[in-house]
Amino acid sequence: MSEKVYGLHAVRALLTRHAERVTQVTMVEGRADPRMTEVQTLAQKSGKPVKRAAPAVFKQLFGEAVHQGVFVEVLPLAMWREEELVTAITAQLENEPRKPPFVLVLDGVQDPHNLGACLRTADACGALAVVIPKDRAVQMTATVRKVAAGAAETTPIAVVTNLARTLRLLKEAGLWIVGADAEAAKLAHETDLSGPIALVMGAEGSGLRQLTRDTCDLTVRLPQQGAVESLNVSVASGMLLYEALRQRLSR
Amino acid sequence: MSEKVYGLHAVRALLTRHAERVTQVTMVEGRADPRMTEVQTLAQKSGKPVKRAAPAVFKQLFGEAVHQGVFVEVLPLAMWREEELVTAITAQLENEPRKPPFVLVLDGVQDPHNLGACLRTADACGALAVVIPKDRAVQMTATVRKVAAGAAETTPIAVVTNLARTLRLLKEAGLWIVGADAEAAKLAHETDLSGPIALVMGAEGSGLRQLTRDTCDLTVRLPQQGAVESLNVSVASGMLLYEALRQRLSR
Repeated sequence: MSEKVYGLHAVRALLTRHAERVTQVTMVEGRADPRMTEVQTLAQKSGKPVKRAAPAVFKQLFGEAVHQGVFVEVLPLAMWREEELVTAITAQLENEPRKPPFVLVLDGVQDPHNLGACLRTADACGALAVVIPKDRAVQMTATVRKVAAGAAETTPIAVVTNLARTLRLLKEAGLWIVGADAEAAKLAHETDLSGPIALVMGAEGSGLRQLTRDTCDLTVRLPQQGAVESLNVSVASGMLLYEALRQRLSR
Repeated sequence: MSEKVYGLHAVRALLTRHAERVTQVTMVEGRADPRMTEVQTLAQKSGKPVKRAAPAVFKQLFGEAVHQGVFVEVLPLAMWREEELVTAITAQLENEPRKPPFVLVLDGVQDPHNLGACLRTADACGALAVVIPKDRAVQMTATVRKVAAGAAETTPIAVVTNLARTLRLLKEAGLWIVGADAEAAKLAHETDLSGPIALVMGAEGSGLRQLTRDTCDLTVRLPQQGAVESLNVSVASGMLLYEALRQRLSR
């Protein structure tokens, strides 16, 4: 079984960084601009078959999405277990000391659109992985993959059975565990988020579970100026991931 | 016709700031904590009728949403026209010089979930209003209001027929017009967004229209570290509104 990922940027990234998972490249008929030629060259270099398809095929597969006339079929990214997550964190801490890893942890997100949007944002912000609990949370479905717009094929997802234990392991591996909490004393931008961190988001509405909150090293909140109670979890994750990335870039 | 807005924070805000639009307060049966008492007192002060309803009524109306056992019925916020938008900007510039107005402009957002999420975020970040064009964009529907979770009743929406003309009027009123553009030279956090601004977001995927871009005083982009091409427009709006608010709070 393979997944389709569209868009020039994603296709280039997959052919460059994960060519072993690409099984097929499909380009729209009758287009030959330099960016398309580049994709074709990349495909040839890595020995991947290139097919041409009519615009109608793209339309049928992707609707109104901005596919830019190219997609690849990839073997789905294998789900990570705890061990692979810890190994990847340790490797990044050792090999890329100037790029401390950060991980997004979703404690019980129920809505597939929210999970998909969080994956997409985590990918855009350069998160190492996204962690979701095996129970009491939405799992990887076709809807999640579609909303994630390719991010599910590029950002690894770790599914864990005991989130509190995983957080302790991440702590031992060298991450600070930062919980998002509307009641936190400090604002995100008043807190150093530029080091190795796991950012933990609670479920829509109900927030962090007590056990999860107790495991956090610190909690932060977002500024809130409006009348409405809370932000959508994917927007709040986006703001906090953005803030962590901004601090990294500003150092 | 009235709209239902739930949640302690939103209900308090509506009773305090917009009591003239509240027609009815409904509280869940059998709860009498201090926060509920406060709502009851606010309702009595402004002479609003208070009803009690069973938890099942709340469940039926709001599903799994965090209604906190209270909702109000409000007369919908009237849509603003250009004149009201300009008047409000001018008033805020004169009366609150330390709180420069900012406005979110959505140039052709098509998806009701995205519009609803943008409204909710604009409210949370303290935007003065949200501007949408009358044509080629989703309008205010029941879905938009539901996703906005009350923000449609608290953050004014201006529907305009000629967006480029509106942007020129906003410019004359004293706002800087800042376009979000993946190709922009400067990152958002390298740009001063703490003054009076209109932040202009393009349609999902296709971005700003040329005419809109030409009207902008400057463009900014978000950092992009991932493989996937672009962020969801509601997440990108959230990050940029957050950045503008962060700069305001950091001054």
